[in-house]
Amino acid sequence: MRFGVLGTGVVGQSIAGRLVELGHETRMGSRQAGNEKAVAWAAEAGEGASEGSFADAAGFGEVVVNATAGGASLEALEAAGAENLAGKVLIDVANTLDFSQGMPPRLSVANDDSLGEQIQRAFPEAKVVKALNTVNANVMVDPSVVPGEHDIFLSGNDEEAKGQVAELLQSFGWPADRILDLGDITAARGQELYVTLWLRLMGVAGSATFNIHLVAG
Amino acid sequence: MRFGVLGTGVVGQSIAGRLVELGHETRMGSRQAGNEKAVAWAAEAGEGASEGSFADAAGFGEVVVNATAGGASLEALEAAGAENLAGKVLIDVANTLDFSQGMPPRLSVANDDSLGEQIQRAFPEAKVVKALNTVNANVMVDPSVVPGEHDIFLSGNDEEAKGQVAELLQSFGWPADRILDLGDITAARGQELYVTLWLRLMGVAGSATFNIHLVAG
Repeated sequence: MRFGVLGTGVVGQSIAGRLVELGHETRMGSRQAGNEKAVAWAAEAGEGASEGSFADAAGFGEVVVNATAGGASLEALEAAGAENLAGKVLIDVANTLDFSQGMPPRLSVANDDSLGEQIQRAFPEAKVVKALNTVNANVMVDPSVVPGEHDIFLSGNDEEAKGQVAELLQSFGWPADRILDLGDITAARGQELYVTLWLRLMGVAGSATFNIHLVAG
Repeated sequence: MRFGVLGTGVVGQSIAGRLVELGHETRMGSRQAGNEKAVAWAAEAGEGASEGSFADAAGFGEVVVNATAGGASLEALEAAGAENLAGKVLIDVANTLDFSQGMPPRLSVANDDSLGEQIQRAFPEAKVVKALNTVNANVMVDPSVVPGEHDIFLSGNDEEAKGQVAELLQSFGWPADRILDLGDITAARGQELYVTLWLRLMGVAGSATFNIHLVAG
């Protein structure tokens, strides 16, 4: 399958790298084609890896991953172009953490809304699935770095799209029964707000390589 | 030890009942002494159980538990009286869920602030410890209803107060190593915002008798 990954940061590089490793043709998108980090990534990742503008990457992908910083995501997706997202699964991995006012960070979207919902409203023809934003990049693409059972969350309005993302997550190593479907895209609020607790749990765990596990009675 | 528990709902009744069971003299507080639910609770709980106004309960307790609805907590604590809270450990169990605008609920305090912080600011001489708000009432007072390892969180500015609350939680059945200190009272933001994810996880678990466990790499 062909993927477009928007964003050249650690999350974008981790996901794009894993996709190439799994044999998917993957184009990393950034504000302008020729972005230094994207070019270096494509050169290193080898066969199947390419880079271009946000629009190049979104147009290339059958599935598009939003791995841009949450505060810049809507702008990046505008640049990607609604026509390049229409009808496609759009996996939103972003968090809206805003450190500009110091610690603890606030979220630039919170409570009454979420970035996942904003993206779905702005691009009604895309099939937005919020996923993976609740773990560090290394855990996203290889859950075995955290031992034992732990869980990853999905939300979105399109059942088939969630099914496709669940399959992709399984190819990353997530067991089918640890991929928890939280409901429609409004559940993205819970996924995004949890990140404020995640930051505190990182302090307890002493590293970002951790996750949570739902334990039921 | 003597406890004052503010609030007559399921959370207040669960905590107050457990405290009496553990041999603590416990006074349940409500807006007005003689509250029907508080009187019924005190009669049923038996020796060591009493009821009164918020001020009666707070004055009685060496430790005070805020188990009122989050939206009404500051008012209830005002009625309890700063003089009855000064120098005491004040365990804040409340959540600020607001269902008035439909589902999913919003939080009446979120992101830049938390109820725990608001209470600490309003009552600077109380030693506020945010705890237990991340699980259902039945799990709060008897963690063994959820099998296996799972975690409970504390935050607050006073280390000694957190130590006392950790001891109390151990007497409820929480293992010492599953009581996670998240830091100062600003961590209450994470504890309170998590509840939006909790509501979705309840849908997945199919019941409120569940919790999460931190799994580290």
